[in-house]
Amino acid sequence: MKLVLLRHGQSLWNLENRFTGWTDVPLSEAGRLEASEAGRLLKEEGFDFDCCYTSYLKRAIQTLDLVLEQMDRQWLPVVKSWKLNERHYGALQGLNKAETAVKYGNEQVLLWRRSFSVQPPSLSINDERNPALQNQYRGIDKNVLPFTESLKDTIARTIPYFEEEIKPRMLKGERILIVAHGNSLRALVMYFEHLSEDEIMQVNIPTGIPLIYTFSKDFSVKKKYYLGDSGEIAEKMRQVSDQGKATKA
Amino acid sequence: MKLVLLRHGQSLWNLENRFTGWTDVPLSEAGRLEASEAGRLLKEEGFDFDCCYTSYLKRAIQTLDLVLEQMDRQWLPVVKSWKLNERHYGALQGLNKAETAVKYGNEQVLLWRRSFSVQPPSLSINDERNPALQNQYRGIDKNVLPFTESLKDTIARTIPYFEEEIKPRMLKGERILIVAHGNSLRALVMYFEHLSEDEIMQVNIPTGIPLIYTFSKDFSVKKKYYLGDSGEIAEKMRQVSDQGKATKA
Repeated sequence: MKLVLLRHGQSLWNLENRFTGWTDVPLSEAGRLEASEAGRLLKEEGFDFDCCYTSYLKRAIQTLDLVLEQMDRQWLPVVKSWKLNERHYGALQGLNKAETAVKYGNEQVLLWRRSFSVQPPSLSINDERNPALQNQYRGIDKNVLPFTESLKDTIARTIPYFEEEIKPRMLKGERILIVAHGNSLRALVMYFEHLSEDEIMQVNIPTGIPLIYTFSKDFSVKKKYYLGDSGEIAEKMRQVSDQGKATKA
Repeated sequence: MKLVLLRHGQSLWNLENRFTGWTDVPLSEAGRLEASEAGRLLKEEGFDFDCCYTSYLKRAIQTLDLVLEQMDRQWLPVVKSWKLNERHYGALQGLNKAETAVKYGNEQVLLWRRSFSVQPPSLSINDERNPALQNQYRGIDKNVLPFTESLKDTIARTIPYFEEEIKPRMLKGERILIVAHGNSLRALVMYFEHLSEDEIMQVNIPTGIPLIYTFSKDFSVKKKYYLGDSGEIAEKMRQVSDQGKATKA
């Protein structure tokens, strides 16, 4: 059994160094190029899929569309779920990371970013950023939509979704591609590799680089690797890790 | 109950005046603009949807993607079915319309284009254009895939699909958008309006112009109209109708 994970490329807000979370920001031109390159590489390496999963957020959906265009697989079924969304950053969403440090203090911001189970400040119920008030989530039970999330909370919705919706299809032999976000993909990596809370906080998934998992029949990981040039991948991992550090300054 | 139909915009082969059918040709730049304009118009007029349907062909899928991008509705569920594909043009697929007239004679070509139930020459089973040999249709029962189709054949797959998959959702109150092709949309128009075989042959659906149907509870048509500038719509209908005539020359 094989599974491919892909983190969406650069969005317009990555450029501005703002907390994005569930804010529905499009890809930047660089992000579009990253997505197309991932698709080109998957095709070149002979990958193919039976079904694709992505989130409700357009930076992931656009990435998937560009991958499928490159692979000439636009006709594949695509399932979109909010349960693959990025971690919800609560009241921090939209704030510049430097501004946030000024407002809440460096230590507090580091705690929100680096701890496994501490939530950022919650949105108030009337906040226009509350998903329950947004058209985009009108089809979802309001009681399950978050006002803020720790990584632990993100994992608590992503893993059951994987187990109920995706894993049964893999067990039937379907080849699946999941295009999602830094933290929803971290959830899957933690689950596949049985990582501890500390270990998963050290994992930085590079953007736009297909991450390939091969599983045994008992769903233990046989092989894991990134597709592409190893130098470029190392550089991308460093960038993602540095983004975290930037809030220190 | 409301339903919106949209015919994809210009593809690269429309430019070359070739029989396209199931050939998977991308949109031209003009076709992409038509699609975006349709999306802009739908948004401006306050349209919204719960679910979208399209074919397996990328000119329709791209059109839908561009519409959803304009409407900021990329997160909507999209269902793709080969049963909404364009009419299969058999062995004519890929031929220039003028070349076809030279090869088969004007009268014969007119008969294939204008008659309701005459099929163009069938693909041979080993023809690489045979859908049963194509990766794209690997998930479909080979016994139901066509080697050629009359309009009657196209209707015979499109209407049951509408009745089984789409109509029940409309009856539950869902707002549906269908992005498809000249002949699969003709099938729906014939069905909604109870047109005769002669009448449906006169219907020319313009590309990139949303066609709005409103239905009574008994599914009779209450209202039907195209969205947009009436002069532009008339001009587009004339173009589609003239395309047919071009093979006379």
